[in-house]
This record gives sequence, C-alpha cells and structure tokens, in this order.
Amino acid sequence: MIDGLEVLPVRGIGDVTAGDDLAALITANAPWLRDGDVLVVTSKIVSKAEGRLVEVPADGPERELARERALASETRRVVARRGPTAIVQTHHGFVMAAAGIDASNVDKTHLVLLPADPDASARALRTALAARGLHVGVVISDTMGRAWRNGLTDVALGAAGIEPFRDHRGEIDPYGNELQLTQMAVIDELAAAGELVKGKCDQVPVAVVRGYPGAGTTETSGAVVLLRDAASDMFSLGTAEAHTAGLVSAATLPDTQPAAPGASTAAIARALATVADVITCAVSSSLTCTPVDLTPSGLMRLGADVHRLRSALAAEGLTSTVTWSDTSAQITVS
Amino acid sequence: MIDGLEVLPVRGIGDVTAGDDLAALITANAPWLRDGDVLVVTSKIVSKAEGRLVEVPADGPERELARERALASETRRVVARRGPTAIVQTHHGFVMAAAGIDASNVDKTHLVLLPADPDASARALRTALAARGLHVGVVISDTMGRAWRNGLTDVALGAAGIEPFRDHRGEIDPYGNELQLTQMAVIDELAAAGELVKGKCDQVPVAVVRGYPGAGTTETSGAVVLLRDAASDMFSLGTAEAHTAGLVSAATLPDTQPAAPGASTAAIARALATVADVITCAVSSSLTCTPVDLTPSGLMRLGADVHRLRSALAAEGLTSTVTWSDTSAQITVS
Repeated sequence: MIDGLEVLPVRGIGDVTAGDDLAALITANAPWLRDGDVLVVTSKIVSKAEGRLVEVPADGPERELARERALASETRRVVARRGPTAIVQTHHGFVMAAAGIDASNVDKTHLVLLPADPDASARALRTALAARGLHVGVVISDTMGRAWRNGLTDVALGAAGIEPFRDHRGEIDPYGNELQLTQMAVIDELAAAGELVKGKCDQVPVAVVRGYPGAGTTETSGAVVLLRDAASDMFSLGTAEAHTAGLVSAATLPDTQPAAPGASTAAIARALATVADVITCAVSSSLTCTPVDLTPSGLMRLGADVHRLRSALAAEGLTSTVTWSDTSAQITVS
Repeated sequence: MIDGLEVLPVRGIGDVTAGDDLAALITANAPWLRDGDVLVVTSKIVSKAEGRLVEVPADGPERELARERALASETRRVVARRGPTAIVQTHHGFVMAAAGIDASNVDKTHLVLLPADPDASARALRTALAARGLHVGVVISDTMGRAWRNGLTDVALGAAGIEPFRDHRGEIDPYGNELQLTQMAVIDELAAAGELVKGKCDQVPVAVVRGYPGAGTTETSGAVVLLRDAASDMFSLGTAEAHTAGLVSAATLPDTQPAAPGASTAAIARALATVADVITCAVSSSLTCTPVDLTPSGLMRLGADVHRLRSALAAEGLTSTVTWSDTSAQITVS
C-alpha cells in the first residue's frame, strides 16, 4: 500500500560537460533529497558527463554523413526502416529510432550518444550519492517511441537501487482469482512520472519521485531485465522487413529441405488451396504434379507453379523437397 | 514549468457493479478532490459500472470456448499469435493481448470487456463530476504489454479534459536547436504515474495526479489520437505473420504483374545475386533466362528457378512479368 507519491523537479543543474560530478551537481541543487527517494535522471546529462559525444560539422552534407556513421556504429541490427526513419536495436539491446542519438540540448557541433552502460551509470551515481550519505534509487531515462501508439514516453535505460519489476504473479485478487502474467515495469512508470515535471527545453534533467516503497535499500538487477531478446519478441522486425524476408525465403528455398516433422493434412490442403488457380497435384504420401502441356514453355510454367506450391507450403510452416523427373515433379512434405 | 506533482490513491471504492454512479463513488471516497486534479481511473471499474461483462462458466472447456467467442467478437484483426497468446487490434483500434478481456478482479462467472467507447466514458465521468462542481481531467487507464520491452505498463484508453499530447515541436532548446518529432503522450505518462499507487489486488482503482497544469479546463480530443492506424504503423503485423505473408505473396505471384515504375539497376543486380547459385539470366532491357538442360526435368527446374528470381525481385520491391516461350523465359521488370 502506498500513501501517495510526490514528483519533484530538480532545477538549476544547468549545462553538463564531460567529467562533471553528477552526484555533486544534483545534491547541490536538491539539498532537500532524502533516503528512499528515486532520482529519475535524463540520460542526456549522463552521456554528457561521461563524454559520450561525437563531434560533427554544424551543417551541410558532411553533417549528415557523420550522423550516419554514428548511427551505424551504435547499431546492432536494423529493425525497420521507412523513408528517413530507422528503428534499430542498439548494442545495449534497446529498440529505438536512430539508436537514441540526439542532436537536441547540445551545441550544434556535437551529437549525444546513449551512455555506454546505463545500468553501470546508474550504479555509479547511486554509489557516489551513498558516499555522501544519501541512499536513493536511480533510474536513467530516455524518450522513446513505441509500436501502435502515437506520441513518445520516457522509459528506463538504466536503474540501480530499485526493483525493475513489481511482480503480481501468484497474488490472489479479492474474488479468489490468482493473477497471471502481471509483471509491472515499474522503472518505466517511474521514468514516465518523472518526465511529467521535466519538459524538454526547461533544463530540468532530474526529477525525484518521493514515497515509492523500497527504493534505495537494495542492490537490484538493473534495467537490463526489461530488454526482450529478439528470439522471444513477436515484433523483432518491421512488418515490411519481415514480408521481404518471406519473399527472400521463397527465392532461396532449395529443392531439398531438411525434414521438420509436423505436416498436417489440413495445412497441406490449405497450401494446395492457395495455388489452386494455377496448379493441381495428386495427393498421396507425397504430392505428384504432372505436366499437361508438354511443350518446353508448358514444362517451364509447371516448374514455376511447383515453386509457388512449395512457397505456399512454407507459408504453412511446412518444409518440402522436390524431385524432378521427366514425367512429373514429386513433392515430399515433412 | 511545473512545481511538482502529487500522485494520490483513492481508497474505499470497493466492489463496483452495473449501474453504479462512479462520480458519486469517487467523490464520496475522495472528498479532498480539487479543481485541476487528473483522475486516473482503471478501465475495469468503468466496464463494470457500464455492465460490459460477459457471463462464462466458472471452469472447464466451456469456459475456454466462451472466452474465445468473446475474444473473436472484440477483435477487428489478429496482429500476432504465438502459442496461446493472441495480440489483436480491437474494434476501438487498441493493439493488446486478448483484446483487453480480463478475468481478474471479477467473480469467476464473468469476464470484463473494455469499455465500448473509453473517450465517451471519460467525458461522461468528467461531466458528472462537473455537475457536482468539480472540474477535473479524466484518464481511463489499462495495463498493456508492448513490443521489445518486458513487463507491462498502464496507458490511457480514454481521456477528457486533458490534452493527450504535450507538443514540443518548434520549441528552441537552450543551444538554439529547434525540437522535432517530440510529441509526448502525456496521458500515457499520467496513466503510468497513477498505476504506481494503485497495485492490482488492493482495490485502489482510482489515482489522482495533482499539480499537472491545464487539467480540467478545456474539452480535448480524447485518447483516440494516440491510436496509430495500421497503414502508418511499421509494426502492424507480427514478424512471423508478415514473413508468412511474404511467402504467400511468392506463392500467389501471378505471371503478369501491373507495372510499378522505379526499377533500379542496383535492385535488379541484388535480386540476381540472391539467386546466383541456381540461375543466370542475360540482362538487357529485360532478363532472358535460357534453358541449358532441355530435358523435361531440366525445363521444369528452370521454371522453378525463374520463379525464385521473380520472388527475389519482389523482395527488392520490383514487379515483374514473365513470358514463357519454347526457347526461354523472358522477365520484364518494372
């Protein structure tokens, strides 16, 4: 049970440059900080203090090239691209536009990169504050877009001294139902709450959330646990990119595929229905596609239609192997 | 500039049933509400008050069937599916697991659907509170997952009397840079802040955010502006689903495609490289693929390889038309 929270801006921090002591700057401008507070620190001042800047020309095509170089070096993989917008996964694992590289709130000859290790930055700041006798939680935040919803929100890049999740799994609600799947990303919600008092051009890079239970008392796993790996993400690629990958799969589908058991009669029937306009094959233990038109062009056309059918089988998750003979194409589905 | 916010729980609301007067329940339990407060109201109590419940058996396979029926009727389209998890777009336009249908915090013989029109619900509650002399903003919230990040957060389903966005576009930062693309989804951040004091089983279905400027004073567009339509969403389909759609495109690629100008020599070269292992075609104004092996099986195999090449061209965004003759397959790319 929480009695209520306060969300307070820290003003007066001003310009931050490489080597600045954030713990000193924050405590000097917020002498009212208390044990148990959560500091929500905009990643930009962390990056600046850590010197995570790239020098770029102030304008012209050279600037654009330098920006592209920085993006490439911060990118692990491209997730989606549309026009000038690139959504990428960074080396940290964050999925965000332009790898989080930012040209705002910095002079025109620099770009700001994300902190190299935001959890380590959060731990270092927490330790430095603890050395001053102040025991707080630290969330390092940044502004991100998301799928399906317009507008941006602040989320956590790094954290220390605050549990990333509040886990309700196994709790029993007042109606006797056991809660499932309810793991709240608390540090993202704290980042969002902090953003509400920050603004963008007001130079309020730190907000304090006061009253959140348990903050500052324990070492925690950091924000890294919020990163979903691509393999378990249902949206690891943009829709257009995944569609293209499907076409490439069809283009590179070899005549022989390793067996992957699990072919259902229903799935084979759906694949046959997909291409029923162009080809009919006899179904028994394998599919036999027999040419009707025996001219060279008729035989080539049948070959293309057989590949259409194998693409349709692949779309049903089925692997297949084709054997070409002079009287038919034989497709073994597995 | 914001001086700071308070986030306060409203306790004592208890069980809500169809026909309950939420304005009366909230004001009775939070007599301390003031003009300008933002009420963050869990959608579940709105649904219950509006009778948006479906009766279901308490257990057994019949319950599962009833749940699937409810899901189907709340679904506009399936976005992604993996095992038992279905991410769908609801008729409102929200993309969420199981269409937001929930079996928690309700007795075992009912499922709770989302409010039919959460913006209308927010407006109605705001109007009912105004009739009691209380001028507030209202956000109707729900818990959602998201792409790329583990854990859930609360976001806004509906809103009234509070601007959904805080728009920084055009503002000049202290370094003289004009901000771009920075439209903050404030009502989602307010929903997240509210969640921090709510819990899941504590029956705190309403939080109050106090101190956020401008709340309660103006009529606004509602949360509907946060919905990104599928056409402009780079993640309108799950990765596996879009990959499958690409394979289906290859399976249904007709011999003749309408011209879509824009074929670049580089794109054609990339497509040819994709299939270089299996086929080589002469490039001039069109691609000429000539059979070497003139046996029936050789001709069929060439036909399949031509379709591989056309799939590779499609993966480059190129449309193509194939003309089969007895001496070659001719591919016109547009």
